[in-house]
Amino acid sequence: MPYRAPVRDIRFILDHVVGFAQVSATPRFAEATPDMAEAILTEAGRIATGILAPLNRAGDQHPARLENGAVVSSPGFAEGYRAIATGGWVGMAASPDHGGMGLPISLALGVDDMMSGACLALQLKPLLSKGQIEALEHHASDDMKALYLPKLTSGEWSGTMNLTEPQAGSDVGALRSKAEPLGDGTYAVTGQKIYITWGDSDLVSNVCHLVLARLPDGAEGTKGISLFMVPKFIPDAAGQPGQRNSLRVVSLEHKLGIHGSPTCVMQFEGAKGWLVGAPHKGMAAMFTMMNNARLSVAAQGVGVAEAALQHALAYAGDRHQGATPLSPDGAIIDHADVRRMLALMRAEVFAARSIALSCAVAIDMATATGSADWQARAALLTPIAKAHGTDIGCEVAHLGVQIHGGMGFVEETGAAQFSRDARITPIYEGTNGIQAMDLVARKMADGGEAAFRLIDEVQRDAEAARPALPDLAGDVWQAAKALREATEGLLAQPLNDRFAGAVPYLRGFARILGGHAHLKAAVADPTREPLARVMIRRIMPEHLALFAQGREGAAGLYALTHEDFAA
Amino acid sequence: MPYRAPVRDIRFILDHVVGFAQVSATPRFAEATPDMAEAILTEAGRIATGILAPLNRAGDQHPARLENGAVVSSPGFAEGYRAIATGGWVGMAASPDHGGMGLPISLALGVDDMMSGACLALQLKPLLSKGQIEALEHHASDDMKALYLPKLTSGEWSGTMNLTEPQAGSDVGALRSKAEPLGDGTYAVTGQKIYITWGDSDLVSNVCHLVLARLPDGAEGTKGISLFMVPKFIPDAAGQPGQRNSLRVVSLEHKLGIHGSPTCVMQFEGAKGWLVGAPHKGMAAMFTMMNNARLSVAAQGVGVAEAALQHALAYAGDRHQGATPLSPDGAIIDHADVRRMLALMRAEVFAARSIALSCAVAIDMATATGSADWQARAALLTPIAKAHGTDIGCEVAHLGVQIHGGMGFVEETGAAQFSRDARITPIYEGTNGIQAMDLVARKMADGGEAAFRLIDEVQRDAEAARPALPDLAGDVWQAAKALREATEGLLAQPLNDRFAGAVPYLRGFARILGGHAHLKAAVADPTREPLARVMIRRIMPEHLALFAQGREGAAGLYALTHEDFAA
Repeated sequence: MPYRAPVRDIRFILDHVVGFAQVSATPRFAEATPDMAEAILTEAGRIATGILAPLNRAGDQHPARLENGAVVSSPGFAEGYRAIATGGWVGMAASPDHGGMGLPISLALGVDDMMSGACLALQLKPLLSKGQIEALEHHASDDMKALYLPKLTSGEWSGTMNLTEPQAGSDVGALRSKAEPLGDGTYAVTGQKIYITWGDSDLVSNVCHLVLARLPDGAEGTKGISLFMVPKFIPDAAGQPGQRNSLRVVSLEHKLGIHGSPTCVMQFEGAKGWLVGAPHKGMAAMFTMMNNARLSVAAQGVGVAEAALQHALAYAGDRHQGATPLSPDGAIIDHADVRRMLALMRAEVFAARSIALSCAVAIDMATATGSADWQARAALLTPIAKAHGTDIGCEVAHLGVQIHGGMGFVEETGAAQFSRDARITPIYEGTNGIQAMDLVARKMADGGEAAFRLIDEVQRDAEAARPALPDLAGDVWQAAKALREATEGLLAQPLNDRFAGAVPYLRGFARILGGHAHLKAAVADPTREPLARVMIRRIMPEHLALFAQGREGAAGLYALTHEDFAA
Repeated sequence: MPYRAPVRDIRFILDHVVGFAQVSATPRFAEATPDMAEAILTEAGRIATGILAPLNRAGDQHPARLENGAVVSSPGFAEGYRAIATGGWVGMAASPDHGGMGLPISLALGVDDMMSGACLALQLKPLLSKGQIEALEHHASDDMKALYLPKLTSGEWSGTMNLTEPQAGSDVGALRSKAEPLGDGTYAVTGQKIYITWGDSDLVSNVCHLVLARLPDGAEGTKGISLFMVPKFIPDAAGQPGQRNSLRVVSLEHKLGIHGSPTCVMQFEGAKGWLVGAPHKGMAAMFTMMNNARLSVAAQGVGVAEAALQHALAYAGDRHQGATPLSPDGAIIDHADVRRMLALMRAEVFAARSIALSCAVAIDMATATGSADWQARAALLTPIAKAHGTDIGCEVAHLGVQIHGGMGFVEETGAAQFSRDARITPIYEGTNGIQAMDLVARKMADGGEAAFRLIDEVQRDAEAARPALPDLAGDVWQAAKALREATEGLLAQPLNDRFAGAVPYLRGFARILGGHAHLKAAVADPTREPLARVMIRRIMPEHLALFAQGREGAAGLYALTHEDFAA
């Protein structure tokens, strides 16, 4: 069965789980009516299903390649990209001032989910442009906006993010790239950057690199870093691609997955660049871009999980292996253990999708209302959505392979590709360890206020659900109580103890949010109760062990000598 | 850092955790003294480290290929195989009657662990021969033994297992291959078999296929299946490879991992075969072979996990990213979350290795003493060792990639290969779902007697450990109590409810056995206490959620309609 975009699920979550109606009710997003949302998601789903999904295998089997220093895309990617660009999907959340549609992130995230489920390797290309558009909207001068934003928004040009260097990964502050002022307001940017997604492309007429580099008077560490726009072709007076800039693709990485997405080593050799934002304030500008990119990566995890689930579901409905409890010649979906796996997968996808969309609603509400509470909610949920959504992407794809049995290990079926593709998502845009540290440190710098407010909400919703679903509501209420205690315990810990328990704490937090989302779904639509029961009764109890691990702190880990790690 | 065989860890577990001394104390294995064990493991470790491990990347990058119908092995595999064969490692547990060394499975399993950690794709080749040797020892006629066993044992010839057909995977009884009597005591075997590991080879002078097929009077299902020896070259009067048999490799699978291991589609076209064992009793014969093969696959999971851990450990010791809590320019191993991952990995490898070796000791004791209790212990532990060891293989390799960050997703580092290679182990030799069903059905057919006896032992050991390690011993005792209750609950469930909870129950069981192993290790050697604490305090609590899932039964899963699985 080919991929079918989950329009129905996304709409249901928006309407009944994450409160998208609040977004439509704001003046800022008044145009995003339920009808508009339906039209947008249906059309994006049509492109994902009909145009992008058929490219997914080709991208894997015929990776992007480097020819004479230029990237040649996988077969069919040009048509796929054109459908995305001409449909206006790159600029759907971008400001209408420069050609965007100004739609809520909640809808854009649903589109990310569907397009990444259809073809992750290609979806990465517009994703990077969207991040760049956002960074420029917030930090670029009016001239730069006028020059770049319309072309990025239309998809005629595309954008990249250049952060990582061989010695500077999670520790961005260790970067060595330099920018020398040329005296005319421009800069000569020099350095090597790695892991540059879609660092070159034959699908657009210009590739715009946002590059982190240090000015001569920049301090060491992250405080001395500035952000530069360094286009592949320097725009001429008419704003068209002109002279070739001094930058090149050195090589492409040979990767486990997303073969259709060229991952470039970039060399900048005195390339002409323009400062974006204030000198030495590059990290702040980059963070604007990264925060929403992190949420988009959550949608990638969910999207690939959805695709892997659909693939496994089709196989399990077709494959017959002996009598099942339901019939003498039924399909393997009716064997208890296969059902268990599929039920876990569906419950996980629904939960992770709900968490990501609730983060998107918080962003939209913060944008629309300026409310600090919504801002804090969005900030709190971003690392949870990213880390949990991408972990689930890997886990669901893993189960998808397992359901295929031997066929899952054979590349021809495509089950393994989802597993390989998903594997990057817990790593890029800040590893999931970094996300968890962000959660327990920066996002708890408010004394846990945003977290406790969310826990209050979960418990209020559980109270409200109690008459209809007493046992499930009771379980969610109790789990929220455990989350409250775990959060209080965390706040009492020194920072490195928090870090030692950050990953299990984050996952436990996500377990309760998943139970909460399923409970709301079952209240809104009683036919969803069986799935909610799978989440709340079979998956959510995991929080007990996770919070136990979280409580352990760091001392036990540092009691191990380096020798203790060796066999 | 290149792979270094974990001789020390295996010896420690044999001596202090799983009671190998009992094996040495039997007349049957009197030769397997501690000195002999050390010599064997040290020598196997030397080959694994020095000869096999350097082949692992070549096997991945230059897969086995088919040329003119014959398999051409990966570069260096000929030398690697020769070292295994000439060292006598194929026949180390085989009977001395036909050239074997007659050593305990406990030692052979340690060797499997090290050689599969070094190069899984190549280790599979002798592994299949070992299974075949065992099946022939138990079921073949004396003539067949005399003809085949010496050559298989010396590694001059190799063996394969031919079970699966496109429509007959987990449901072996659905196979369609036929065997027609030729009137001279031989049979014409016809059919297509898939997933035939090392189905052809340029490393040996003959490939001996054990093929499941149905005689003309064979009943439907598993009861009508017979086992045949079908050699690639029919032995001549002198026992040398003679006339070419009517069988061929149709194609090799393009797989996610173990690229150096050719996975063949085999076509038998009236190939000459000899019946092994009684007519229609092929499944029983195959099960002899499969049970120990399942345990060997457990060692593969552990072995790859070990290799992935060593690889990640080396990276984490070299890679510097910012100040750690221990120093301003420390390696990432000193960041709490990286330590957490490495500590979990090491604790998991030790636990899974201990479970596999304790199963091997039970097999040896059953062989040496004929005791039904030891037999039942071995039968109980086999599915746990296989499913848990291979799950841990995948999970540890996944964490290994994560520790590498972006470098983990780039194939050049080799971290991803462990993850790809390990992925087959939860699938072959009976998927882990099948293992779990075996545990909760066949292995509980004794009313749980073997399980309760093991739980008693865990609690006795916990009592004995209480003076030295009161909190850890208490935790293990309590967890064993929870396992007892979960087992009682399971036994009260109808079969399909057991199946619905089989996988979480098995994992929960393994969690307690892991805690038990670490507790014994810490009692024997106090320097191992910190690692035991990681297992018991951070990992073992997972059983709470697992047993909760196990209790849920099947009804909730069957309450989901097929539509409920779709988004």
